[in-house]
Amino acid sequence: MGVEGTEPGTVRPGGRTARVRAAVLQATGDTLTEQGFAHLDLADIARRAEVGKTTVYRRWGTVTSLVADLLVDMAEQSLPRTETGSLLGDLKANARLVQRTLAAPRQGALFKAVIAAATCEAKTAEALHRFYDIRVKEWAPCVQQAIDRGEVPEGTDPHEVIRAVSAPLYYRLLTTGESLDEAAADRAAEAAATAARAGAYLRGV
Amino acid sequence: MGVEGTEPGTVRPGGRTARVRAAVLQATGDTLTEQGFAHLDLADIARRAEVGKTTVYRRWGTVTSLVADLLVDMAEQSLPRTETGSLLGDLKANARLVQRTLAAPRQGALFKAVIAAATCEAKTAEALHRFYDIRVKEWAPCVQQAIDRGEVPEGTDPHEVIRAVSAPLYYRLLTTGESLDEAAADRAAEAAATAARAGAYLRGV
Repeated sequence: MGVEGTEPGTVRPGGRTARVRAAVLQATGDTLTEQGFAHLDLADIARRAEVGKTTVYRRWGTVTSLVADLLVDMAEQSLPRTETGSLLGDLKANARLVQRTLAAPRQGALFKAVIAAATCEAKTAEALHRFYDIRVKEWAPCVQQAIDRGEVPEGTDPHEVIRAVSAPLYYRLLTTGESLDEAAADRAAEAAATAARAGAYLRGV
Repeated sequence: MGVEGTEPGTVRPGGRTARVRAAVLQATGDTLTEQGFAHLDLADIARRAEVGKTTVYRRWGTVTSLVADLLVDMAEQSLPRTETGSLLGDLKANARLVQRTLAAPRQGALFKAVIAAATCEAKTAEALHRFYDIRVKEWAPCVQQAIDRGEVPEGTDPHEVIRAVSAPLYYRLLTTGESLDEAAADRAAEAAATAARAGAYLRGV
């Protein structure tokens, strides 16, 4: 999420190796966005990235490894959490970040493609799980702070609260044709905050 | 959901046309479950269903039409809603039905495959949206009854409440490696009921 910073042609800091990786991952994301994961091909990616085919085969070897590395990069490029001082404020900031990401044409298509790829490939699924694990861990401290402030009960599972914010947005993206607007983001945050305050996310209950 | 009734070899009521459809859809579901949607092929399906290739081509024409018809059948085979007399009871019944379906190896793989297929094909996406629309409409009356009983505020959007029950279960299925247990189902139902009572799903808010 929040990978919007990666525009075509962006050269990231680092030497040749970093530039090659950036070009190849950009080409991988573009292909996934335009054609879905079923059409990924290492030789095509190399051509699109203007990188030698041998380099791509040697460094990534398989389409699966390439998508896994893209997910590592997406996690690295993701925006850090913001702090607003209240659980609802923090969850709204998180929900709007997820919503903006999924509603953006390229990013929305990219997330759909990696989720679809993960249903077909165990190693891609592991990489996807790691991506979401990193994003959930990034935001979980806002729930711990709410526990410390006494906003939500002791024993609340921060990870479950953060997942509860994203879940309705992804569900709407994948199972309905409805657009993802800010109202949907705010509703997701409010529902999660309300349920958390009422103790719906207590561990082991 | 609740398509568990469709066991291999089951002959549904109806004439030859219905039997052909049942065999072809069974073969389609089996192939999706075992290999994912990228490997669907009408000739393979015909062979697996022991149905003439010409019949399959004439009746469905494309893999996309076949998956769309499978989704119609999945909606037709889905279990009807149960009534327990309370919103939490009804939402728990719904959540456990979704959880059992997604946790069952064949059904879970089938749902992942049709969701993945929908990310690649607009017509499959439309068919998937219709499936979820039917399922949401089947369960929405339990929220209207809760409004009538005064359990949740007037103006609550029943569809949003029903979607809120399913969302965390699908999100967990697609983005984590964690198993879908009854505790996850109950937590989803409790969170949705709590948020609904607090007015988190009021229309147009």
